[in-house]
Amino acid sequence: MGDRVGRLRSGAEPARGGPLYLGVDPGLAATGWGLIDDDTRVVACGTVRTSPGPAAPRLLRIVDELRSVVAAYPVGEAALEELFVGRNATSVIGVAQARGAILAALASAGVDVHEYKPAQVKAVLTGYGMATKAQMARMLSLQAPVPRRLDDHAADAVAIAICHARSRRLHRLVAT
Amino acid sequence: MGDRVGRLRSGAEPARGGPLYLGVDPGLAATGWGLIDDDTRVVACGTVRTSPGPAAPRLLRIVDELRSVVAAYPVGEAALEELFVGRNATSVIGVAQARGAILAALASAGVDVHEYKPAQVKAVLTGYGMATKAQMARMLSLQAPVPRRLDDHAADAVAIAICHARSRRLHRLVAT
Repeated sequence: MGDRVGRLRSGAEPARGGPLYLGVDPGLAATGWGLIDDDTRVVACGTVRTSPGPAAPRLLRIVDELRSVVAAYPVGEAALEELFVGRNATSVIGVAQARGAILAALASAGVDVHEYKPAQVKAVLTGYGMATKAQMARMLSLQAPVPRRLDDHAADAVAIAICHARSRRLHRLVAT
Repeated sequence: MGDRVGRLRSGAEPARGGPLYLGVDPGLAATGWGLIDDDTRVVACGTVRTSPGPAAPRLLRIVDELRSVVAAYPVGEAALEELFVGRNATSVIGVAQARGAILAALASAGVDVHEYKPAQVKAVLTGYGMATKAQMARMLSLQAPVPRRLDDHAADAVAIAICHARSRRLHRLVAT
């Protein structure tokens, strides 16, 4: 039912053993995920890939992988990008279906999900809401170094997780 | 987290105690479901309604209701309409997210899911692939009488289940 790209563990121990932030980049063919700690260090990440075919078993594979991530790590909260209907209106169905399956699975596992606009994620990572993919990749590699190059899906997932962790830290600073 | 419209049990005992067919009409605000037996009698149906708010808990409610239906009845197979991007491209995200959560939940419960084009469902029920909502409602009430009027979502779900049951029967006839 498709390949599972080996999960990457960065070797970093979670900061203060606290809960981790899970970023997810949903897609039917490829769903990226990234786990970071409160110091925005990448603890683990990966990409679930599924082969063409009926949607139901592919969605189940994606959900099963994320469930196993949530079971294996102390995931505190999750973050996803908001979804808009852009120019490619057909592919949006596949992404939205993956997103729905993932949202239900995370809710079922008791993990709160937060959503960010794509421009917010870019602004947090690069200081510029309309950053290009190359700019995002460069800033991500500086801010969240990992032993090997991430594919686009895992990288996007890590970026969303970092966006959420920074947003959380800012909220805590404001609250104290 | 929204109202649960009372489930309707029609009083009909499943034909020969065989597996039932579950039709689902997915939507974030309202998801209809209908269970019919091999003689296309409605055994039970209902509509899960959720209140506006974050998608994750709403999707979980929908999935939990369908899981409880699958746990309570001998569901053999499920059927949904295929989803296309039509004119209302924004609402398609909500429907697709509900659909994805439902597909993953049914696959997780071991229920095979079959998909039909809207025109197929209409053709099976009315003999005409471009039947209006009123024509569909009239033909449905003749072919699958139930004690009270169904809302649109439950009615659509029953129609999809009937389409699937007829398709299955036809396949059996051809195979023998």
